[in-house]
Amino acid sequence: MQTIDSLIHARWIAPVEPDATVYENHSLAVNEGRIVDMLPAQQARETYRADIEHDLGRHLLIPGLVNTHTHAAMTLLRGIADDLPLDEWLNRHIWPAESRWVNEDFVHDGTQLAIAEMLRSGTTCFNDMYFFPDVTARVAAHSGIRVCAGLIILDFPTIWAQDADEYISKGLEVHDRYRSDPLISTLFAPHAPYTVSDAPLEHIRVLADELDISIHMHVHETAAEVGKALELTGKRPLARLQDLGLISPALLAVHMTQLTADEIRQYAEGGGHVVHCPESNMKLASGFSPVVELARAGVNIALGTDGAASNNDLDMLGEMRSAALLAKATSGDASALPAGTVLRMATLNGAKALGLGEDTGSLVPGKWADLTAVRLDTLETRPLYDPVSQLVYACSREQVTDVWVAGQHLLKERRLTTLDGNEILQRTRAWQTKIRSTDR
Amino acid sequence: MQTIDSLIHARWIAPVEPDATVYENHSLAVNEGRIVDMLPAQQARETYRADIEHDLGRHLLIPGLVNTHTHAAMTLLRGIADDLPLDEWLNRHIWPAESRWVNEDFVHDGTQLAIAEMLRSGTTCFNDMYFFPDVTARVAAHSGIRVCAGLIILDFPTIWAQDADEYISKGLEVHDRYRSDPLISTLFAPHAPYTVSDAPLEHIRVLADELDISIHMHVHETAAEVGKALELTGKRPLARLQDLGLISPALLAVHMTQLTADEIRQYAEGGGHVVHCPESNMKLASGFSPVVELARAGVNIALGTDGAASNNDLDMLGEMRSAALLAKATSGDASALPAGTVLRMATLNGAKALGLGEDTGSLVPGKWADLTAVRLDTLETRPLYDPVSQLVYACSREQVTDVWVAGQHLLKERRLTTLDGNEILQRTRAWQTKIRSTDR
Repeated sequence: MQTIDSLIHARWIAPVEPDATVYENHSLAVNEGRIVDMLPAQQARETYRADIEHDLGRHLLIPGLVNTHTHAAMTLLRGIADDLPLDEWLNRHIWPAESRWVNEDFVHDGTQLAIAEMLRSGTTCFNDMYFFPDVTARVAAHSGIRVCAGLIILDFPTIWAQDADEYISKGLEVHDRYRSDPLISTLFAPHAPYTVSDAPLEHIRVLADELDISIHMHVHETAAEVGKALELTGKRPLARLQDLGLISPALLAVHMTQLTADEIRQYAEGGGHVVHCPESNMKLASGFSPVVELARAGVNIALGTDGAASNNDLDMLGEMRSAALLAKATSGDASALPAGTVLRMATLNGAKALGLGEDTGSLVPGKWADLTAVRLDTLETRPLYDPVSQLVYACSREQVTDVWVAGQHLLKERRLTTLDGNEILQRTRAWQTKIRSTDR
Repeated sequence: MQTIDSLIHARWIAPVEPDATVYENHSLAVNEGRIVDMLPAQQARETYRADIEHDLGRHLLIPGLVNTHTHAAMTLLRGIADDLPLDEWLNRHIWPAESRWVNEDFVHDGTQLAIAEMLRSGTTCFNDMYFFPDVTARVAAHSGIRVCAGLIILDFPTIWAQDADEYISKGLEVHDRYRSDPLISTLFAPHAPYTVSDAPLEHIRVLADELDISIHMHVHETAAEVGKALELTGKRPLARLQDLGLISPALLAVHMTQLTADEIRQYAEGGGHVVHCPESNMKLASGFSPVVELARAGVNIALGTDGAASNNDLDMLGEMRSAALLAKATSGDASALPAGTVLRMATLNGAKALGLGEDTGSLVPGKWADLTAVRLDTLETRPLYDPVSQLVYACSREQVTDVWVAGQHLLKERRLTTLDGNEILQRTRAWQTKIRSTDR
């Protein structure tokens, strides 16, 4: 008998690797934060002596969900200005609220609220883009969730930095501070082609190569953005990024709703990743990302919720459902983006895009034990013919019961173990009062 | 002091009538199953002496949701064949399973499972189309939910009837049996233009006029359906229905994804209602219903989940969100179908389509007390700037705490009062075993 930290017995396990596989009555053996084995439950009990055993007899165990694009702190702006045209939403509500209120405390409190929501809905890793990435990293570290803190870069001054050089140098400081933390990684996060000019983008490309970190950027989010770029530069933004040498396996292009067949082919050839945000794209009427064509071209597609100001939740289960339904609708093919594929997008594909494919995203020995357990015995998810299909098409975030990150039990029968929900709610209420007082 | 049955105090009330209004700290006075008053809470306590008082201090109170198109019993087929092309889904899985298994017990157990799910997600009235509508009505009556039992009509034999005449005569028996029940109404439910021929449709039109009941029908669900009709008859189905005199305020046309501008105008002129099923339309890749154009033309648009075999839930909160997001995406206008409008579609518009506009669908004195209370104090729905927006864009079905139909408290702090959840789950499991044994 080998002694290990814990054994998790589950009614069903969908490891994502191998693809489209569901094991019944199997167990995951976890030691020192990592998966060491997966085997039939009976055999597991005979092979391992575990300090703790968890019995998930009514649950599906999946890799923790990877939210590959969000702005966590913006959760404090959830629902502040819904049902408005994009311009009015951004220019008259979101940006004024941000310029009035964003500071370290805002990022601390908003990110903590976001993490609480993400853990409660099964997300174990998130890729963020916002001001004060050091605060985001610190709050995430405190909570135990895995984070990719985006080192935001813009041409213009904000509370975080004055110009592109300062954004970059402050970003590098954050990168250095957390480079050896197993739960924290950093990415360059130049906001978008229309907010970052050529010189800083070239600088970022060189640094990203040197440091071996990725680049996370909004690209071709709306037709207006592409049209304006054509007007100003004579080039579509993707062509400009191509010319700048940015299209590579280090690029995570978010949204990508406006794509020609040639652009899809070139992007695939360059090896870039796409982060699909179906609910945000729908809510802001940005357009449809051609995910079926992108996947056919061989592009790795991950999934993100975007910020709660344009979604309005950080629920990756709901996002999986929206992605699957929307792909069928836009492709006219009910077999497009089946449940297993969308689960892979929400886990392994995200991990790969983030350079964490060896660490998380599937339940494979050697990877960190980043796990999510979902109850499937409620009225809403019965009968049950296929657990993965049920997860995607019928399950709600409230059916997530337990979450582990690197073996640490962060959500325990729906109770957060590292965060104080009441305290978070109190601080959220204080922000709500302040923010509402200035929103018109 | 006037003595009444109950006073319900709520933090917020969205009565739907008047439009786009939210009252804070108001109370609903209920007597003999009907709303008798709505007024500020303080004043309510001074005006009424109630046998029971309910304090919903963290809740939004809305009219009970009206699911205007479903096949309740099909909940037993939830998830049996996902991610398949429509033809294969229907011909190789759904119809074989139905012809093998549908009987009175199937309808009893499936409908009970569906009602449990609907009550737990805030639905107080559903419009059904399935075999054995007498069983559907009986199960609904037992549970206390409001039902519109569809008197299904097809040209071909099934376990319920042999030919159109028999479907109609059995339907009329069901209509007679329940005509005086305040919770049960009946509608003719000819399945679709391609499954019911002219003679029975003419007969139904005459009977519907005589009996003053409505007609509930799948219309223009897919492009294939319209194309095949053109091939066989030289007419699009809507043109045929127009010629048969069926387009009138008595018609509820479900799906309507294939519509020309002329058809929209003519349908609006005829006064027909449309039941929009966005999730089912997406999941089966049926197409997009042009709800923005339909609404602009003056058509009353209600909302339905369709059956759980093509959704895969009966959650009207989720359906509202999908409707709002999809309308923005397809119209390219982020202000399309705002939260208040989609709530009206899911309540009052449904009631009107069903001929129940005087009885339910809004919180107005004189109407039945069909009510749904939703908690908005969880992390996932904070901060809170606009309760109706939060309901549509951030809330999940699990936040529904209490439901009343005609004043009867059917869901009490998430506990079903008239149905036994465990018994339902046990019977569902037995069906699952049987159905799975024959599905290939």
